[in-house]
Amino acid sequence: MRPSRRDWLRAGLHAAVAPTIMTTQARAYDIDDIESRLAAGAGIEGVTKRDLPTPSLLLDLDAFEANVKRMAEHAGGAGLGLRPHAKTHKCSEIARRQVGAGALGVCVATIREAEAMAAAGVGGLLVTSESVGPNKIHRLMRLCGRRPDTMQVVDHPENARQLDEAAAAGGVRLHVLVDVDPLGRRTGIPPGPEAVSLAETIDRLPNLRLRGVHGYCGASSHVKGFQQRKAHSEQYMGPVLETYFAMRRKGLPAEIMSGASTGTYNIDSALKGMTELQVGSYALMDVDYRIIGGRSGEVYDDFGNALHVLATVISKNHNDIATVDAGLKAFATDREFGPDVARPAGLAYAFRGDEHGALTLADAKQEVRLGDKIELVVPHCDPNVNLYDRMYCVRGDHVRQVWKIDARGHV
Amino acid sequence: MRPSRRDWLRAGLHAAVAPTIMTTQARAYDIDDIESRLAAGAGIEGVTKRDLPTPSLLLDLDAFEANVKRMAEHAGGAGLGLRPHAKTHKCSEIARRQVGAGALGVCVATIREAEAMAAAGVGGLLVTSESVGPNKIHRLMRLCGRRPDTMQVVDHPENARQLDEAAAAGGVRLHVLVDVDPLGRRTGIPPGPEAVSLAETIDRLPNLRLRGVHGYCGASSHVKGFQQRKAHSEQYMGPVLETYFAMRRKGLPAEIMSGASTGTYNIDSALKGMTELQVGSYALMDVDYRIIGGRSGEVYDDFGNALHVLATVISKNHNDIATVDAGLKAFATDREFGPDVARPAGLAYAFRGDEHGALTLADAKQEVRLGDKIELVVPHCDPNVNLYDRMYCVRGDHVRQVWKIDARGHV
Repeated sequence: MRPSRRDWLRAGLHAAVAPTIMTTQARAYDIDDIESRLAAGAGIEGVTKRDLPTPSLLLDLDAFEANVKRMAEHAGGAGLGLRPHAKTHKCSEIARRQVGAGALGVCVATIREAEAMAAAGVGGLLVTSESVGPNKIHRLMRLCGRRPDTMQVVDHPENARQLDEAAAAGGVRLHVLVDVDPLGRRTGIPPGPEAVSLAETIDRLPNLRLRGVHGYCGASSHVKGFQQRKAHSEQYMGPVLETYFAMRRKGLPAEIMSGASTGTYNIDSALKGMTELQVGSYALMDVDYRIIGGRSGEVYDDFGNALHVLATVISKNHNDIATVDAGLKAFATDREFGPDVARPAGLAYAFRGDEHGALTLADAKQEVRLGDKIELVVPHCDPNVNLYDRMYCVRGDHVRQVWKIDARGHV
Repeated sequence: MRPSRRDWLRAGLHAAVAPTIMTTQARAYDIDDIESRLAAGAGIEGVTKRDLPTPSLLLDLDAFEANVKRMAEHAGGAGLGLRPHAKTHKCSEIARRQVGAGALGVCVATIREAEAMAAAGVGGLLVTSESVGPNKIHRLMRLCGRRPDTMQVVDHPENARQLDEAAAAGGVRLHVLVDVDPLGRRTGIPPGPEAVSLAETIDRLPNLRLRGVHGYCGASSHVKGFQQRKAHSEQYMGPVLETYFAMRRKGLPAEIMSGASTGTYNIDSALKGMTELQVGSYALMDVDYRIIGGRSGEVYDDFGNALHVLATVISKNHNDIATVDAGLKAFATDREFGPDVARPAGLAYAFRGDEHGALTLADAKQEVRLGDKIELVVPHCDPNVNLYDRMYCVRGDHVRQVWKIDARGHV
C-alpha cells in the first residue's frame, strides 16, 4: 500500500516538526525515512538534494549515462570487448547498466565484489587480483559453481596448483588469465619466458582452463599529457603483448588480452593484440583524472564528472571562512590534492579533520550562509565511493533513485 | 538450534572443498558463514585469525580492555567525568563497555552516530558538531524525544533560534553546550564576550537549556613532545576556560566544561574548571598517537595498540618484495605515513594502489610466503575504522566475537 503524505510525515517522531522546519528551508527526509519509502514501494518523488542527509554521495544520472554510452561506443568502434572495472563503483545497479549498454560483464578486485555482483545477477566476472589462501579460494569455488564463466588471474605456479586442487574438490573448471605485470612490481609475473611457462603449467592442470592474459599498467593511467601517456603505455605494455603472442605461437588457447585504464582507453585500444578494455573510473570521474590532460587540451574531459559529495555549511563565525560537515571521513585522501568545489562557484575547500572541511571565500563579501549546500568533485573516485553505503541519483535538483553500494564493506 | 559441524561445512557450496584446503592451511570461514553462525546463536568457537577474510579489522580484547580501564581510572582519580568520543570507533558495543566502566555516556560527531548509539541503548549523548539544516535538526529532535538527556553544541545565535523553534514544535527541551573554538577556526565561536553573549541568548530561549561549554583543541592533540603539548594546550584552552568562568560569574547555569583528547588527557585534566574528558582514540590507538611522545620517552605508550588490519600475502614474484591484499581502501591515508607492520617483525609496508600494498623485506632471505598473514597498526584510527563494517575481536589467535561498526555509513 502506498503510504499517504500524512503517514509519511507521521513517520518522524513529531509530525509537527517537519512543517515548521519546512518553512525555513526544506523537508527533512532522513535516511530511515527514504529507506522505508523505498521498501514500501512508495518511491521518493518530490525529494530534492536539499532534503538529503549530508555528507552524502550524489550520482548525476545525465553525466553517468553519457559516460557509459560513450565508452561503449568507443569499444564497439575499436572492435574490442568492454569489461568495465566494478572496483570503481562497487554498485551492481551500475554494473547492470554497463552490461545493458553492451559490456561483456565486469571486472572485480575482490571476491566480496564478485559475490555481490553474482548475487545481483551480473555475470562475465573477471577477478583481477590473485585469490590466495583458503578463505578466498573457497569462496571463489563457490562463486564458480554459481557463475561458471568467472575468470581468475594467476601469477604463480603454486597458486595455480592450489586452485586446480580446489577446483577438483569443488567439481568446477576454473577459467584463468595469466597476470602479467607490466611494471608495477605489485601483482603479476614479469613478461617473458617465465610467464609463458606459467601459462603452460596452467594449460596442463586438468581443472583449470587457460583463457589468456591480464596486463594492467596502473602506472600509465595517470601520466600527465596525452603523448607522454601514450609513450609510457606503449613502452610497458609492449612486452606484455609480446608475451601474449608468444603464448599463442605455442598454440596455447590464449584468446583474451585484457587491459587498459580510463587514462589509456584510447591509447591501448590501438595496441595490436588487445581484445578487451577493463576501464573503471570513466563512469564516475574525479579530480585525479581531470588533471592528466586530454588528447587536446589541459583538462581530460572525455568523460563528465558524474560523482559529487553533497555537504552542508554548519559553522560560519568568520568573514573569510565557513565550515562544512564533510572531512577526512567523507573523501578519499590518498592524493596530494583535495576535492574541488563544483557548486557554488568561487569557493575552495581544505580538510579540517575527520568530520569537517573549511571553505575559503575568494571574496569576503561572498554570501555563504548556515545551511547552504555545497557540491564537491571527489579527488579519487574508487576509494571515495568505498566510504559510502549508497548513492543518491539525481537529475538536476531532483533525487530519482537511491542505489546501494552493495559490493563495498566487509573489507 | 545449534548447527552441527557437518551443517556448518555444508553451508559452503561444496562441502568437499573445505577439508582439502584445510590440509593446506586453515578452514575457510567466510563472512556469510560467520554471520549465519552468529545469527543461529552458534558462536564462532574454533575460528582463528587464519580463517578470517582479509583485509579485515582486528580488535585485541586484552589491549582494548586495559585501555578502557586505564582511562576510566585516570578520570576517576582526577575527579572528572568521562564521556569518550564514539566517533573513533562508531561501535555501540564499545560504547556500552565504556559506559560499563563508568563513563557518563559518549560523545558523537554526527546525528547518524547518535541514532545508532540510542538504538543500541546508549545514552548520555553529546553531539559535538553543529546540527544545522532541516535534516539534522529534525533528526536531533526525534532523538531528544527518545533520549531527553542528549546535549548539542551550538556556535551561532541563528542556529540557537532554529533549534529553539524546532524544540518548541517537537515538544522537547534541548540541552545545549556553547561550542567555544580554542584556535581551529573550524567550528565554534571565539572565546570572549561574544561567546558569553551566545550563552545568554541560549539561556533566554525557552526551549533550550544551557548546560555549559564545549572546547575541543584538536590542534593540541598531536603536538610532539609532552612539554610542548602541555604548553600548547594551556595556551589555547586558557581563554576557553576564562570564558566558561565568565559565564558562571554571570550566574549562567554552566555546570559542564567538556574537552581534551587522547593526546592531552593527562594535561587537560589538570586545567582548573574542566569537568569532563571527551577522549576517543585511547580505546584503539594508532601510529599517529604513538609518535607524539609520552610524558617520559619518545613513544606515547600510555595506551596499547588494540586495532590492527589483517592482510594476506597474495603475490610473491620478487626476492625483496611481497604484495598484500590491503591498500588505499583498507587504511586511512590522511597522514603522511602509512601503517606499521606489527607482525611478523622485520617488514615495512608501502601503499600500492586501491587494493594492494607492498611489503619490503629488510633481509632478502626472509621467508614470506604466499598466504602468509600480516598484521598492521593503522595510521589514524578514526577514519580507518570508518572503512569497515565489523571488527573481529581476538584473544591471541582466537576470534571471540564479531562487533558491528553500527554507527558508520550513511555518510
